[in-house]
Amino acid sequence: MTIKTNLKDSILTVTLNRPDSLNAFNPQLMDDLTDAFLDAATNSEVKVLILTGEGRAFSAGADLAAMGRPSDPPKHGLAGMLDAIVDFPKPFLLAVNGIGVGIGATLCGLADLTYIAETARLRCPFSALGLTAEAGSTHSFPQLMGRQKANWFLLSAEWMTAAECVQSGLALEMLPGDELLIRVNEQAAKLAALPSSSVMKTKALMTGPHKEQLKAHIIKENEGLAELTGAPANREAITAFLEKREPNFAGME
Amino acid sequence: MTIKTNLKDSILTVTLNRPDSLNAFNPQLMDDLTDAFLDAATNSEVKVLILTGEGRAFSAGADLAAMGRPSDPPKHGLAGMLDAIVDFPKPFLLAVNGIGVGIGATLCGLADLTYIAETARLRCPFSALGLTAEAGSTHSFPQLMGRQKANWFLLSAEWMTAAECVQSGLALEMLPGDELLIRVNEQAAKLAALPSSSVMKTKALMTGPHKEQLKAHIIKENEGLAELTGAPANREAITAFLEKREPNFAGME
Amino acid sequence: MTIKTNLKDSILTVTLNRPDSLNAFNPQLMDDLTDAFLDAATNSEVKVLILTGEGRAFSAGADLAAMGRPSDPPKHGLAGMLDAIVDFPKPFLLAVNGIGVGIGATLCGLADLTYIAETARLRCPFSALGLTAEAGSTHSFPQLMGRQKANWFLLSAEWMTAAECVQSGLALEMLPGDELLIRVNEQAAKLAALPSSSVMKTKALMTGPHKEQLKAHIIKENEGLAELTGAPANREAITAFLEKREPNFAGME
Repeated sequence: MTIKTNLKDSILTVTLNRPDSLNAFNPQLMDDLTDAFLDAATNSEVKVLILTGEGRAFSAGADLAAMGRPSDPPKHGLAGMLDAIVDFPKPFLLAVNGIGVGIGATLCGLADLTYIAETARLRCPFSALGLTAEAGSTHSFPQLMGRQKANWFLLSAEWMTAAECVQSGLALEMLPGDELLIRVNEQAAKLAALPSSSVMKTKALMTGPHKEQLKAHIIKENEGLAELTGAPANREAITAFLEKREPNFAGME
Repeated sequence: MTIKTNLKDSILTVTLNRPDSLNAFNPQLMDDLTDAFLDAATNSEVKVLILTGEGRAFSAGADLAAMGRPSDPPKHGLAGMLDAIVDFPKPFLLAVNGIGVGIGATLCGLADLTYIAETARLRCPFSALGLTAEAGSTHSFPQLMGRQKANWFLLSAEWMTAAECVQSGLALEMLPGDELLIRVNEQAAKLAALPSSSVMKTKALMTGPHKEQLKAHIIKENEGLAELTGAPANREAITAFLEKREPNFAGME
Repeated sequence: MTIKTNLKDSILTVTLNRPDSLNAFNPQLMDDLTDAFLDAATNSEVKVLILTGEGRAFSAGADLAAMGRPSDPPKHGLAGMLDAIVDFPKPFLLAVNGIGVGIGATLCGLADLTYIAETARLRCPFSALGLTAEAGSTHSFPQLMGRQKANWFLLSAEWMTAAECVQSGLALEMLPGDELLIRVNEQAAKLAALPSSSVMKTKALMTGPHKEQLKAHIIKENEGLAELTGAPANREAITAFLEKREPNFAGME
């Protein structure tokens, strides 16, 4: 299985489970994760959802290796997965246990509460791949971090440390790696002990208008990705990656 | 009187004056406070309004004791009070002199400038009461604190220290208790010395679109409160309170 | 020339060049700066724009001395300049090398990334001049700094230190004066090395809805300025300035 799930004391913990691929998102993982969110949304035994990653990474992002391979059309795909997460009506806590790249970083903008291990680092490599930002990050990141910090993080493709994530507002708390899940479970338990009707109503009130804006941004981001995928800069980035050299974007518009 | 007012050097100081009830908001206090804001809005001798509390607390929130008692229909009620505060056209400085609970915490999101005593703490107990957040806090708190900090504060019913309030952006400055009003008056005097026409115009420009969003959130919050009041979780919270025991929300949706 | 421009390695550096007037914005400078932004927007050799000031100040704001003088109607004017900056599709880095007053402060809200010298200070003197805030600052400042810090900065006409600018989110980094342009060029070079198509697309996605709100605020701010210019408080501010005395706004609404 690409994910593991564990339900205990009304808390569903979902663990990305492709540690040998640094929990990269392939079509199967996206579909499995979507199903986990959809089931948890309607399962009255689940009051809170925690998402984390198996092994040393949180997620290396989209599985570039899987992208080239022929595959059956996905059940939900990226769009379905993002919809399920954005529409998830219960508290969604993210425990970033190690590096997060691409969707492994932008998920922080979709979580209600993000906790991060001291040694974790995040990167949005979209510009360096000749692509553009996704998962609503062009909306959620400026909201969380302020527009200038979000500009730098999304435009530059540079790394951000765990401390910078907390300082900027992208994550709520930084913890030693071996205390991360303890703390996240502790906080999740506080939320799970409260009446779901109240917690869900307050979440709905807070995310209401935000959700529509997020979905509008996701649609425009996907249009941008469609436009840029396969264009000269994206082709040069992929070729350079395969040829194990630095890409050269000079002379490209 | 449930409030005291003092006008000096164009600064109107309004003090919640039910110290024996920790300045809890009963219907009379809401109406008196509303009248104070409405009068100050049109009184050209008032250039700035400061709100604070008498005694050791800022406000314990809604007066639960008064809620059960039969009473005349209020003149303004909570809705009228929130409208008067949201529409107040002059600078509104809040001096949080001690603990603030419920409306005693959410008022921070409606003030133009919030100053807080070192020993003060804030709490939004809505989830723990089987209710949901009010006074526009589902809009104002994410704006001021960032969405993740606001999520935790509004969903968890946990306390926030004065230092956390400043660090998160919910308050502008933290001060030793005996310097709080000195500092707030100092800052109010700077604003009162400037032309009201300019100060009011700039406030109007800054709050314009924000005001409409705030009012829309208040309406939706009130719908949520109406839905949850008297439902099983709310009944259990009240019963547990009266029976002096911890509530048990297990098994409730 | 009121500005100097230097294009090197795809980075266009624009320097406000009226050091004897502390780089105050007169009509000619506004037109020259507008032309620089418009040209850079369409010149494919420019990938990033840096704006800074010559001499010890960044900019003293509007040139009050020039305001009284008869002059030809400007080519672009303030409105045209703000449009060109808001619509600029490439990364716009601001290096605040010294004090910034009025438009010299509000430009921070229009830059994608603002870097500030340790010794710089900013001030928005609009209230003290009997005027109101401009350049979209009533929208951009609350977004960057949070509503309370923005309220104080825009309403009070008080100074803000470089450290406060960074702490509040109005600037991204503070640097020793002699390292400012080195650091800004370093960061600009990282952005210039990435594919412009990706960088511009991500900037467009992030600024999309924000741009319309900004322009709506600029229009309303200009209406406010038109209303207040020449009114009693503004006349008293100008008279006091010419008579080298403190203004007295007592008794004015």
